[in-house]
Amino acid sequence: MITVAVDAMGGDNAPVEIVKGAVDAVAKRSDIKVTLVGRKTDIEQELSKYTYDRERVQILHASEVIETGEPPVASIRGKKDSSIVVGLKQVKDKQADAFVSCGSTGAVLVGGQLIAGKIKGVKRPPLAPLLPTEKGVSLLIDCGANVDARSEHLVQFAKMGSIYMEHVVGIRKPRVAILNIGVEEEKGNALVKETYPLLKECSDINFIGSIEAREIPSGAADVIVCEAFVGNVALKLYEGVGSTLMKQIKGAMLSSFRGKIGALLAKPSLKQVLKKFDASEYGGAPLLGLNGLVVKAHGSSKAKEVTNAIIQCVAFTEQKINDKIRESLNA
Amino acid sequence: MITVAVDAMGGDNAPVEIVKGAVDAVAKRSDIKVTLVGRKTDIEQELSKYTYDRERVQILHASEVIETGEPPVASIRGKKDSSIVVGLKQVKDKQADAFVSCGSTGAVLVGGQLIAGKIKGVKRPPLAPLLPTEKGVSLLIDCGANVDARSEHLVQFAKMGSIYMEHVVGIRKPRVAILNIGVEEEKGNALVKETYPLLKECSDINFIGSIEAREIPSGAADVIVCEAFVGNVALKLYEGVGSTLMKQIKGAMLSSFRGKIGALLAKPSLKQVLKKFDASEYGGAPLLGLNGLVVKAHGSSKAKEVTNAIIQCVAFTEQKINDKIRESLNA
Repeated sequence: MITVAVDAMGGDNAPVEIVKGAVDAVAKRSDIKVTLVGRKTDIEQELSKYTYDRERVQILHASEVIETGEPPVASIRGKKDSSIVVGLKQVKDKQADAFVSCGSTGAVLVGGQLIAGKIKGVKRPPLAPLLPTEKGVSLLIDCGANVDARSEHLVQFAKMGSIYMEHVVGIRKPRVAILNIGVEEEKGNALVKETYPLLKECSDINFIGSIEAREIPSGAADVIVCEAFVGNVALKLYEGVGSTLMKQIKGAMLSSFRGKIGALLAKPSLKQVLKKFDASEYGGAPLLGLNGLVVKAHGSSKAKEVTNAIIQCVAFTEQKINDKIRESLNA
Repeated sequence: MITVAVDAMGGDNAPVEIVKGAVDAVAKRSDIKVTLVGRKTDIEQELSKYTYDRERVQILHASEVIETGEPPVASIRGKKDSSIVVGLKQVKDKQADAFVSCGSTGAVLVGGQLIAGKIKGVKRPPLAPLLPTEKGVSLLIDCGANVDARSEHLVQFAKMGSIYMEHVVGIRKPRVAILNIGVEEEKGNALVKETYPLLKECSDINFIGSIEAREIPSGAADVIVCEAFVGNVALKLYEGVGSTLMKQIKGAMLSSFRGKIGALLAKPSLKQVLKKFDASEYGGAPLLGLNGLVVKAHGSSKAKEVTNAIIQCVAFTEQKINDKIRESLNA
């Protein structure tokens, strides 16, 4: 049995979609227990809409909420009774195996490090979302808040990402690449040039060299290693270009009668692509290298994404990912 | 009359499409003269297909070609009779106002600096492509080869980009933003945090603060300032996500009968979007801050893009962009 603490107050659709997602996760999997963290009366009201196994859904009251715009460090330190702080403490105290939040990314990242704490040997815990590609998904690591990383950090990202893709996503010998502005070995900025030979030396990962950003959507690598600033830009651009293109296609089609009929007929095909390239389909992004598991799901998550993010915690815990990370980094 | 030296040997479709593009540019505009640089016999053979104003199309023989994979510095130094070196010398010797190439980006960037030379006061000449957006185009500056820039370089990029967008593209008081991982002033990596207050102090640009990568496709800023590594990743991802999505949509539509009929009807609308979001529509990317004008067009350019890149040189020269840059940076 896996226990997942869920931030019932975080995200654009809290608490409605979060509570629904948690109830759905418990209904789908008999090996999951959920602790909904947040304002008790709000959660109770939402829960009253559903029938569910009461043994496996509990409420943990937290009176405060950290809003998206708040400065992360100050909010984690100041709001001791917020759903994020109380939820993370559940992980720290081993009352929960994992914590899932759709709330403030900054607060989850800072709180994860300050409260859950890092695995021995981990220098920086990276945020590692799965990106949809033509071939499936790729892990982009790091997209977090710890910018200006050093080469030793990137080497750890490569190892942690490789373990995650192999044992949680199920890809044998994941192809690890470093995000670069050319494929030749001498290309890159100072950080990439310093990191490249270090990755080449790692015998425990399947390093395939540099990847250009153009190749990411085609699925040219399973683990894409980068510094957080670049990773964050890439992640957000991925979302932005996709959603703008879809909007434009819709608009263009609906601007003519012929296009409208075409759109009607093509709708199922378009939806299929839209779904495939929707990052939210793939559960939340794990913050790797922490004691326990902390998962940041998209702020706009609906019940389905919350359910996916919760279920994802099972494989992570069962596969003892943290033990594997500990072994790998302290070898 | 503007004279543009054109690298007839550079790019995937050279010399066929390059020569065609040059002939078309001369046909379209009576104020353009073109010097086709490259292997004389190859160029003559292509030119023989067309009728054109012989007064305004000349050939300058260059026996060597720099291939895309070659190391830039070595190739510029070693291949003195290459089309890139000979073409750039035309600019240096004021035989041409501009040089357009679809060849090796690295060689054009290095050669531009070494041969054409920098405008007094310019620290680094940035490569500044126009990105298609919902509202029109935005300038992403720098996407070049000079990675690991300092804040003083980024401030110059902002000024040069602003001048370009105002006087070549025709946008009054262009909105200048810095590419960042959040919109709050305290967000960013060390470089962005250092650059932000410097941009805020510039009275000659319309600085609107930070822009997240997600907002680029919607056209939230006219000039997007960034360091070259990040810019290059953003540019290539822009291309990659767009082309993968279009491919996926096509594939999904053609996989069912219903979708096929829909695709047939929707084709004009889809083409319209594809065209709008095709970066190659917008001519080449100028390398700003050099004596004369050096334009790098996409390696896959066809005649139309070559024509656009050549025509773009007229406004640049007529608007005396380089004088404006010189004044701005030495004020």
